[in-house]
Amino acid sequence: MKRIRVRAGNQNYPIVIHSNQLRVGRIPKQLHTDGGRVILITDKTVAKFHLKSTTDRLEKMGLRAEVITVRPGERSKRPGMVVRLAQEMLAKGANRKTPVVALGGGVVGDLAGLVASLFMRGVPLVHIPTTLLAQVDSSIGGKTGVDLPEGKNLLGTFWPPLAVWTWLGYLKTLPPRRVREGLSEALKYGYIYDPPVLELATGIDPRNPLATPDALGAMVERCAAAKAEIVSRDEREGGLREILNFGHTLGHALERVMGYHQITHGEAVAIGMMLELKLSRNSGHTEPGIVEDLKERLVKLGLPHHLPDNVTIQELVDAARHDKKKTRNDFRIIGIRDVGKTEIMNFTAAELSRALSASI
Amino acid sequence: MKRIRVRAGNQNYPIVIHSNQLRVGRIPKQLHTDGGRVILITDKTVAKFHLKSTTDRLEKMGLRAEVITVRPGERSKRPGMVVRLAQEMLAKGANRKTPVVALGGGVVGDLAGLVASLFMRGVPLVHIPTTLLAQVDSSIGGKTGVDLPEGKNLLGTFWPPLAVWTWLGYLKTLPPRRVREGLSEALKYGYIYDPPVLELATGIDPRNPLATPDALGAMVERCAAAKAEIVSRDEREGGLREILNFGHTLGHALERVMGYHQITHGEAVAIGMMLELKLSRNSGHTEPGIVEDLKERLVKLGLPHHLPDNVTIQELVDAARHDKKKTRNDFRIIGIRDVGKTEIMNFTAAELSRALSASI
Repeated sequence: MKRIRVRAGNQNYPIVIHSNQLRVGRIPKQLHTDGGRVILITDKTVAKFHLKSTTDRLEKMGLRAEVITVRPGERSKRPGMVVRLAQEMLAKGANRKTPVVALGGGVVGDLAGLVASLFMRGVPLVHIPTTLLAQVDSSIGGKTGVDLPEGKNLLGTFWPPLAVWTWLGYLKTLPPRRVREGLSEALKYGYIYDPPVLELATGIDPRNPLATPDALGAMVERCAAAKAEIVSRDEREGGLREILNFGHTLGHALERVMGYHQITHGEAVAIGMMLELKLSRNSGHTEPGIVEDLKERLVKLGLPHHLPDNVTIQELVDAARHDKKKTRNDFRIIGIRDVGKTEIMNFTAAELSRALSASI
Repeated sequence: MKRIRVRAGNQNYPIVIHSNQLRVGRIPKQLHTDGGRVILITDKTVAKFHLKSTTDRLEKMGLRAEVITVRPGERSKRPGMVVRLAQEMLAKGANRKTPVVALGGGVVGDLAGLVASLFMRGVPLVHIPTTLLAQVDSSIGGKTGVDLPEGKNLLGTFWPPLAVWTWLGYLKTLPPRRVREGLSEALKYGYIYDPPVLELATGIDPRNPLATPDALGAMVERCAAAKAEIVSRDEREGGLREILNFGHTLGHALERVMGYHQITHGEAVAIGMMLELKLSRNSGHTEPGIVEDLKERLVKLGLPHHLPDNVTIQELVDAARHDKKKTRNDFRIIGIRDVGKTEIMNFTAAELSRALSASI
C-alpha cells in the first residue's frame, strides 16, 4: 500500500494505491455527511466487470452507492450529460452533501468531477480510477471537463477530490490498447520528471500488465507521486504544471486532425512526444540518443512513433493553433534537455512548421 | 466613492461604488492579459439603455469590449445558455486569459459568472451590476448558477470576481417593481446585520430612487459592506452566511408555488421575511413590535406583506421541502431576536406547518 498526498489550495487529499484489493484506509468523514449514501457514476463497460465488487467493498466501508451509468467513450463528455446526471441525482434525492464517487477512466472522472463541482455549487468527490491512464495521470490534479464541438475540455473546473482510491486489480480487464495508452503517459513522467519510470514502463506487457505486479505497482506509484508533486506546486497551471504538456501540444493537435475515434489519446501523445523531442534535439540543447531511446521504448510497447502518412505538418500546425493552451500567436512547447530535465521552447506557427519539416 | 474589500479564499477583491459615473480606480492587471480585450455579457434591456455609455467608459480604461447579449429574464439562466455563450466566446477568439464582464442584474451576473468559471476552466470576471438587487446583494459573494426544471440555481460554482464596479446611475432606468425588489433585499440586511439600513431603505422612493441620492448611496454602501463582511467570513456557506437566508426559505418556496413569472424574487422575500419573523415572534424570543415595524415598511415601499389568498400553507411547506438548502428532513429558518440579531430555528415539516398556521 502506498499513500501519496496532494496539495490543493489550503487543503490536501490522499492518493491511496493498493495492489491486493480496493482499500482506502481511513474514510474521509465528509463521505458520511448524507448518512453514508453516495452517488456512484460509472460507464457501462466498467459496470459490467467491476460494479458489483466495488459496491460490495463500499458497503463494507459503510457507503451505500446509488449508481448512475453513462455510455463509455469520449462522446459522453458533453454538457448535456452534465445536466442529465444532475437530474438523475435529484431524482435519487441527492442534496448538497451527497458525495459523488467516480468509478472509471478519464472520461468518467472528468465528467463526474464536473458534475460534482457544479451540483448545488459543489459536493464532495472521490475518484476510483479503473484505467492505467486514470491511475497514473487523469485522476490526480483536480481537473474536470466536458467537450464542445469546437474542442476538448472547453468547459470545466478545478475540483479536487477528497481522495483517489487506486486498485491495480481493475487493470486486469483493461484492453491492451488502453494499457498502452497509460504506458504512453507514464513514459511522459519519465522524461519530464522521474527517469526510473522509463525502465519500469518499458518492462510492462500491455497484454498482461499484472504479470509484473511489482513493476506495475512501482510505476503507478512513481507516476502518481510525480503528478502529485507537480500539481501540488502549481494547482492552476501558472508555471511548473506546464511541463505536463510534453507531447501534448502536438498530441492534441493530432487527435483533432485524425478525429478522436481514430487514435487513442495515448497514441497521439506517443507521436507528440517523438515530434516534440525531435524539435528539442534540433534546437541543439538535448543530450544525444534520447530520440532513439524513446523510439525503441515505443516500438517495444507497441505504440506508434511517427506521424501517420495521411497527416501533413501543415494540418498539424493548423490544428495546434486551435488548441486552447495557446493564448497568443506563439506556441510554447516542452523540450527535453536530458531525461528528467525540461525546457520551454517558443515558436511562431511558421517557425513550428519549418522546424517540424526539418526535424522529421 | 466607496471602496469595500471582500475576502474570497486567499484572495480579495474590491467593490467600488460611485454615484457620478462608472469609475473603477486602478484597473486589475489581469483585465489586460488578452491585450485589453474583454467579453461583455449583458441582456437586451440593459443594452438598450446602457451599452453604449458603458463600452465608451471601458474604452477610456483601455478595455475593448466584444458584446454578447442574452434575453432578459430568468429563462436565460439555463445550462444551454452557458454552452451558447461559450461557443460565442470561442467564435470571437476568446482564450483562457480573456476576461468576462457581466453587465446587468442577477440573471446576467449568475449566468456570466458561471460561464467565466467554466470557460477553459476559468477566466477573470468583473461584475457591473445594473439593478438595485444586484448592487446590494447578488453581485457580491461569488455565487454563480443556472436553473434546472427541478429548481433554481441547481448547477453553479463559487467564482469570485476581480472586482465589482457599481454605478448608481444605472438605476435611473430601472422600473419601480425592480427597485422595490432591491429594497426588499436591503431590508433583509437591516434585520440581520445593520439596523440603520432600515431607515435608509424606507426613505427611498421606488419610482425615483435617485431623488434621494445620499440615502440611496449610503444604503447601497451599507448593504454591500454587510454582504462583503458576511461572505468574507464564510465563503462557502458553512456558518455565518446562513443568516443571508432570512426571508428566503419561505420566499423561495413561494416563488416555486406561484411560478417565477407571477412574483419577483424581492416580493417573495418580503412575504418570506414577514412569515419567518412571525415564526420567530411566536417562538417567544423576539423583541415586541418588530413584525409591525416590517409590515409598515413594506406597505410604505409598496411591497406585499402577506401570503396571497390562493397559496396554502401546505403548498408552501411542500415547496420548501424541495428547496436545495434543505439537506435533511428538518428546516433551518433564520429568526430575528432583535433588529440586527439573528437566531437559528429548527422545524420538522409538520412543526413548520403548525407554526405557520398558528402565526398567520
